Amino acid sequence: MEIRIMKNILDRNQNKANEVRDMLASKKVVMVNIISSPGAGKTTLLERTLEEFRSKFRIGVIEGDITTDRDARRLQKFDIPIVVINTEGGCHLDSHSISKAIDSFDLDNLDILFVENVGNLICPSEFDLGESFKLAVVSTAEGDDKPGKYPMLFREARAVLLNKIDLIPYTNFELENFKTDLRNINAGIPLFEVSCTKGDGLKSWFDWINEQVKTSR
Amino acid sequence: MEIRIMKNILDRNQNKANEVRDMLASKKVVMVNIISSPGAGKTTLLERTLEEFRSKFRIGVIEGDITTDRDARRLQKFDIPIVVINTEGGCHLDSHSISKAIDSFDLDNLDILFVENVGNLICPSEFDLGESFKLAVVSTAEGDDKPGKYPMLFREARAVLLNKIDLIPYTNFELENFKTDLRNINAGIPLFEVSCTKGDGLKSWFDWINEQVKTSR
Repeated sequence: MEIRIMKNILDRNQNKANEVRDMLASKKVVMVNIISSPGAGKTTLLERTLEEFRSKFRIGVIEGDITTDRDARRLQKFDIPIVVINTEGGCHLDSHSISKAIDSFDLDNLDILFVENVGNLICPSEFDLGESFKLAVVSTAEGDDKPGKYPMLFREARAVLLNKIDLIPYTNFELENFKTDLRNINAGIPLFEVSCTKGDGLKSWFDWINEQVKTSR
Repeated sequence: MEIRIMKNILDRNQNKANEVRDMLASKKVVMVNIISSPGAGKTTLLERTLEEFRSKFRIGVIEGDITTDRDARRLQKFDIPIVVINTEGGCHLDSHSISKAIDSFDLDNLDILFVENVGNLICPSEFDLGESFKLAVVSTAEGDDKPGKYPMLFREARAVLLNKIDLIPYTNFELENFKTDLRNINAGIPLFEVSCTKGDGLKSWFDWINEQVKTSR
């Protein structure tokens, strides 16, 4: 019975996600659904990415947060449109809240919409938001075994950003183990090895995002 | 409607959790429900804790994992009873799976049962497993803003273990910010500042666990 109910919830979510996806495609807006564990560095990645692109692209952000607007406040300095969705305990965003949130954006004047999902490596992977693609962010401090232990996200994502590579010398993270684990789940998926706080490795990520926006036009 | 269904699920979970709690109390078994984000160090904490206590107490472990038995395999060397619960995509353990799992233990010959929940800072907090108490584990690499952003766990837990303090010099984690955030959510909650890989600070944790087992007798 619970499975049936869950299927209904997922079906309704999928229908609305399809509407969102059609709407964004008609406006040529790329939507990136950023998913990670708590504290893997989604907001810091957004800070770096906004610094790089805000003068090149028209950017909006949707900040998913359980109860605060702390992440949104960190991005206020960029003077771009930001909508906060508080899930009030909910463990993921869904397409209905995204659909309402995008009503607040001027889609005719937007190139890319970043969605920072709630910090959770599991539930957000199950809910299509109508995004162009999912980005999995994972921190080296979480250990090199995450793709195998949380396979759904790494299967669903179009790219993986491995953050905090500057911490590798101080942890038992083995890059080769991580890569092997990831390739077993999703061979050929692009992997960006970066440190968002130090700025290391971000150029390949920027080039790739640039390419995603250009090819959607 | 979804709220009503969720309430039914939680009510059924609560009823079974009460049964589990009564059963464990009658056998004087302490059950610790360990909750954290992915990769905060729950399994390494268990390794350290088993090394310390396996000759003093009779210990069992329930390993909650989405799809693998990797964490359980890390604990095999201790030669204690371990039961793996694979949630097959599920984002938390519930009291029904715990109830089935404890049937496999000889409760008359057990002092403490550690439950490693699925790596998730949100959903596991909502589901009472019948535990004696919840332990929140959080890594410094996740940032100092976690209590405020994920308040439910920090409100529900009886103690907080802050792991990976050895990484503080290489991150922008501010211990005072973390403590202030935590005190605002749950003033007076015990906080253990440790590094499970280096072994730092574990004595206070061991003393506290020792006390929990002793007072339950």
